[in-house]
Amino acid sequence: MTSNNRIPRQAVIREVGLRDGLQSIATVVSTAHKCEWLRAAVDAGQTEIEVGSFVPPRLMPQLADTPEVLAFAKTLPGLFASVLVPNLRGAERALEGNADLMILPLSASHAHSLANLRKTPDEVVAELGRIRAARDASGRKTLIEGGVGTAFGCTIQGRVEEDEVLRLMQALLDAGADRVSLADTVGYADPSSVARLFEKALKIAGDRFWCGHFHDTRGLALVNVHAALQLGVYRFDASLAGIGGCPHAPGASGNASTEDLAFMLAAMGIETGLDIPALLALRARVAKWIEGEPTHGALWRAGLPRTFAAAA
Amino acid sequence: MTSNNRIPRQAVIREVGLRDGLQSIATVVSTAHKCEWLRAAVDAGQTEIEVGSFVPPRLMPQLADTPEVLAFAKTLPGLFASVLVPNLRGAERALEGNADLMILPLSASHAHSLANLRKTPDEVVAELGRIRAARDASGRKTLIEGGVGTAFGCTIQGRVEEDEVLRLMQALLDAGADRVSLADTVGYADPSSVARLFEKALKIAGDRFWCGHFHDTRGLALVNVHAALQLGVYRFDASLAGIGGCPHAPGASGNASTEDLAFMLAAMGIETGLDIPALLALRARVAKWIEGEPTHGALWRAGLPRTFAAAA
Repeated sequence: MTSNNRIPRQAVIREVGLRDGLQSIATVVSTAHKCEWLRAAVDAGQTEIEVGSFVPPRLMPQLADTPEVLAFAKTLPGLFASVLVPNLRGAERALEGNADLMILPLSASHAHSLANLRKTPDEVVAELGRIRAARDASGRKTLIEGGVGTAFGCTIQGRVEEDEVLRLMQALLDAGADRVSLADTVGYADPSSVARLFEKALKIAGDRFWCGHFHDTRGLALVNVHAALQLGVYRFDASLAGIGGCPHAPGASGNASTEDLAFMLAAMGIETGLDIPALLALRARVAKWIEGEPTHGALWRAGLPRTFAAAA
Repeated sequence: MTSNNRIPRQAVIREVGLRDGLQSIATVVSTAHKCEWLRAAVDAGQTEIEVGSFVPPRLMPQLADTPEVLAFAKTLPGLFASVLVPNLRGAERALEGNADLMILPLSASHAHSLANLRKTPDEVVAELGRIRAARDASGRKTLIEGGVGTAFGCTIQGRVEEDEVLRLMQALLDAGADRVSLADTVGYADPSSVARLFEKALKIAGDRFWCGHFHDTRGLALVNVHAALQLGVYRFDASLAGIGGCPHAPGASGNASTEDLAFMLAAMGIETGLDIPALLALRARVAKWIEGEPTHGALWRAGLPRTFAAAA
C-alpha cells in the first residue's frame, strides 16, 4: 500500500511572513500595518504566527517593534504567538512579553552557524540549556523550540551530514527543548531527502517534532511539504506571498507561500481552518505595503478552481 | 511502509515546449530556431520531444512549419519525435512524416471538448478508431497515444467525474490506442486527486499508461508529478521555461518546467540522462527568442545547489 494513510487529517500553517518574510526585505512595515496583518490573519483562520524576532534592533530595524507586535498579538483570542530568539538575552525578552513559544535557531552547518549566529552549533545547544533554565525560573509557560536549520545543506559549507543534523536535534532535546523542527534554509531539499531525514527525526523526537520549514528557492517547497505530510508531519512554516529568505545564505529566497500551501492542503482534503479568499485578500494588502519587493506564489494570479467549493 | 519503493529509478521528461509551449504564445519562433532548439535539447540528453501539431495552419500559425520541424527531428539520432494530431487528417500528415508517436487529445470535459475540438469525447474515441485503421493500413510504426485532458476538472464545465475519465481511457484503448495519458489541462489537480485517479488509470492501462501532464497554474505541477512518481509513473510532459497553457481554458498557464523537474528528479536520485547546465543554457536561448512572453521556473534564477554534483 501507499504511505498516504499517514497523511494527517488536519494541518497547521504557521505564518512566518512577519518574521522570516519582513526581515529579508528592505521595506520597513509599520507597527500599525503589522497589527492589521495579525488581526486579518486571525480573521482568516490563522492560529499560529511567528510575530517577530528579539535580535538587536540595529541588526534588524525591520523587526525593532517586536515587543509591541507581540503585545498586540497576545490580545488576539486564539492566537498562538511565536518569536525568534537568537540567544538567552532574546529569550528573556520573549519571556517578558509572555510569548507562547520561542524559537532558537541552530544551524547544522558549522560555517553557516558561524556566519549567521557567530556561534558553533554546540554553543547554541549550550545556550538552549541556559534558556531552558531561565524559562523554568520565570514561571512562564513559553515553549522552547530548537529549530535545526541548513538541515539539507548550505550555500557556504555545501554538504551537511544527516548524522550531524540528527545529533544536534537530539542534543537540543537533551538540553531542554520542548519542541524541535527542521528547516531547509537554502532550498537544497528534495522529496527523497526530506522523506529520509524526517523519518529519522520523527523517530528521535516523536511528539516533540514540531514543524517543517521549506524554502522555495528551487521550486520544491510544496513537494517537500508533501513528502513530510506523508510521514504524518502536520505543521509547516509558510509566509504570505512567499516572502522571505536568509540574509546569510546568498541565493536563498522565498518561503513556501501560505496561500498556495493552504490551497494544496485544502484540495487534498486536509483541514486547516483557513479561509483562502480571506488570505488572498490579505495577501493583496500586504503586497501593497511592501510594493517593489519580490513576492511569490501562483494562486493569487490564477484564483481558486471553479470546483474548489465543491471539493472542500 | 511507504509508497516510495514504487518510485522509479529512471524517468523520462517529454519536452512539450515546442508544441504546448509555442502554441500558447503570440511570438512565432522561426523554423531555424526550432531546429536549433531540437538539436540542443538532444545534446542535453532529451530523448522524447513533441515537435509540433498537425492542426490547420490558419488556426495555429506558430506551428505551421510542423512538417519541416518533424522532418528535421527525424534526422536527429536517438530522438523519439511526437506530434499532436487533432483528427484523422492530422494523423495522415503525421504518418506521412513518419512521426514516432502521434497524440490525439481527448477532453473528458464535454464542454471543453466542444470548445476545443468541436467534438464530443465519444466522437474523439471514434476518430481514434479511424486513425488506428489508417495507421495499420499505412505500414508505419507510428504509435498512437490517446491523451485524456481536463482529467481533474475544467474551467468551463467545472467538475469532471473520475468514472467518466476512466471510461474514456478504456474506450480509447478499446478503439486501438497503443498508449494513454492523463492531463491536468487547467491546473486543478492536487497530490491526493492525482494518487486516486492515476492508481485507477494504471489498473486499466497497465504498461500502456504513458505519461502524466501537469500544468503549474496553481503551483502544484511538481507535487503532482511526485504523487504520480510514487505510483511508478515514469514519464512526464514538461516544457522548457514552463511555457504553455491552453488557449481554450482561461487562466490555465504554464506547464511543469523542464529544468525544474529535471532538477527534482536528479536530486531524488532518479536517472533522466539530462545535462541540467545544458538545459539551463538552452532555456536562456529560448527565453531570448520569445522575449516578452511569460516564462516560469525557479532553478534558472537560483542555480544548482553547491552540493548537486556530489548528490547526482
